Amino acid sequence: MKEKILLSYGSGGKHTFEFINNFVLKYFSNDILNQLLDSAVIKISDNTKLAFSIDSYTVSPIFFPGGDIGKLSICGTINDLLCVGAKPLFISLSLIIEEGLETEVMEKIFSSIKEVSEKENVKIVTGDTKVVQKGMCDKIFITTAGIGVIENNIDLNYNKIEAGDAVIITGSIAEHGCAVLLSRGAYGFKSDIQSDCASLKGLVEKVLASNYAQYIKFMRDPTRGGVAAALNEIVNKTKGISIEIEEEKIPIKDNVKHFCDLLGFDPLNIANEGKMLMIVSPTVAEEVVKILKQYHLGKDAAIIGKVVRDEKPKVVLKTLYGTKRIVELPIAEELPRIC
Amino acid sequence: MKEKILLSYGSGGKHTFEFINNFVLKYFSNDILNQLLDSAVIKISDNTKLAFSIDSYTVSPIFFPGGDIGKLSICGTINDLLCVGAKPLFISLSLIIEEGLETEVMEKIFSSIKEVSEKENVKIVTGDTKVVQKGMCDKIFITTAGIGVIENNIDLNYNKIEAGDAVIITGSIAEHGCAVLLSRGAYGFKSDIQSDCASLKGLVEKVLASNYAQYIKFMRDPTRGGVAAALNEIVNKTKGISIEIEEEKIPIKDNVKHFCDLLGFDPLNIANEGKMLMIVSPTVAEEVVKILKQYHLGKDAAIIGKVVRDEKPKVVLKTLYGTKRIVELPIAEELPRIC
Repeated sequence: MKEKILLSYGSGGKHTFEFINNFVLKYFSNDILNQLLDSAVIKISDNTKLAFSIDSYTVSPIFFPGGDIGKLSICGTINDLLCVGAKPLFISLSLIIEEGLETEVMEKIFSSIKEVSEKENVKIVTGDTKVVQKGMCDKIFITTAGIGVIENNIDLNYNKIEAGDAVIITGSIAEHGCAVLLSRGAYGFKSDIQSDCASLKGLVEKVLASNYAQYIKFMRDPTRGGVAAALNEIVNKTKGISIEIEEEKIPIKDNVKHFCDLLGFDPLNIANEGKMLMIVSPTVAEEVVKILKQYHLGKDAAIIGKVVRDEKPKVVLKTLYGTKRIVELPIAEELPRIC
Repeated sequence: MKEKILLSYGSGGKHTFEFINNFVLKYFSNDILNQLLDSAVIKISDNTKLAFSIDSYTVSPIFFPGGDIGKLSICGTINDLLCVGAKPLFISLSLIIEEGLETEVMEKIFSSIKEVSEKENVKIVTGDTKVVQKGMCDKIFITTAGIGVIENNIDLNYNKIEAGDAVIITGSIAEHGCAVLLSRGAYGFKSDIQSDCASLKGLVEKVLASNYAQYIKFMRDPTRGGVAAALNEIVNKTKGISIEIEEEKIPIKDNVKHFCDLLGFDPLNIANEGKMLMIVSPTVAEEVVKILKQYHLGKDAAIIGKVVRDEKPKVVLKTLYGTKRIVELPIAEELPRIC
């Protein structure tokens, strides 16, 4: 640990994992936290298993093409609950607002929250509001915690993953991060890239309600740090496996690819806010993709790679040119306050 | 609603209630949220009733006599769960950190969190860390959400309160707010006032495990806005009652009284972080106080007043001089960022 907290500790990359593993877990280690799943899985009684998650949103700017901090905070928490197979039910909402923020801005944010929470049938059941003096925070930070119920027969975890499993992504990558960066206006050109910010509740529920539910091993939404961070975390938490993905199979929109090429960004490192990575048995992978493709949010779903046996866990990309390269955890903070 | 968000919207006083009632509930009204209890009470199944709470902590300074932002964030969430009679079990912890904060400061905060959560047997099960650029927040903000289980026979709510009930406070008032203000060093003198920041889990569990549990009608911890805000909220949410309290019965330490007298503060308006107001049947009030007094955190517990029938809900104080005055909801933000 450095002597001071670095911006990169919040990036979702290598420094975040070091911060969590070497610092957070040193203080708060316990069976549930140590799983480091997107939501904690807690047993309330023999018959009741809950998912519990929390996330703070500090995205800048607070409005961006395709969403805003309100929509992001609800969708993000819903998606984290979905990762462990839960049915998202209740959300608590805590606001830290900078004195002097226009009430009209609050109205827009609340409208977004209302719209997405009603559509997805999750209830905002409790909350808190703190207001700090001007200059003591940047407009508004929102923290959402969520509770979902996990059916008894569902148990998604790293230890289910095995060599041969297929890696599915539910759609095209890197849109959220690019949209937020573009909306900062710092690159001197315009683009029609929209954030993919969306709740995946409907989509994931379709898969979990299908005959293939029992073959779903693991899910993770590739947010901060992108697909690269999510897959690296999976190989690091699962014993004896690597993941190989193929560049030509990874869905990416032309405008996103173009933007990343221009600026030298690797789209694998860039945040998504409406995509899910699924690790599934190879026997049902094609069928799961077929289900996903029936829905708007899953229309570009694809099998992008597979799990292989390996003593040295790593993520390998087979490039368009047929070469292979290791996909590292992003190290530095390329994109602060992306969510 | 004003055109801009005011500091007082976060004060716990009149403006906070207007913000919640006229703005928040306009967007997010539902059966659970509308109760406006310290924790949401949610039914997961016929046999499982949970408490769910969230609070953001922006206290300044982050270290103060008697506690720090870490201890405060855990105790505050535990106490909110206790208010609805829950057994606090799980906490999620979300950090928003200013880039450059000394790691040593984080270590101290984490040590406090570890100490109190282990002592109170609540588990930190999930979390999130965001780091924002220097100047974009003030050192560190912590948001904690909590889950507790409510036994089926416990049902604390406004509708249980009736004329004749006694009002108990578990100890001396106004210490937290005074300690934080003093630690800002803005008043040119020193005092030995300590924040009362504490988890009330042990204390409240003793009462709920006693034969008198069924006679406990309602609990609220008088934090922001102090006893004045908490009691005003109770009379406003309960039909046809007022609350009368007696100044001479309200426990207050000499140093706190002196400090408030000097600065013209009403101690009834000042935040507590380790006290509980309990509304109980008059027949058991003395016995409940006896139980409380057996424990360190309840040694100054006292019956401070009673509930009376009244068409015009208000909180009335019988002063030391025998006169009566109405205790209003605090209006303006005397004490920003007290928690």
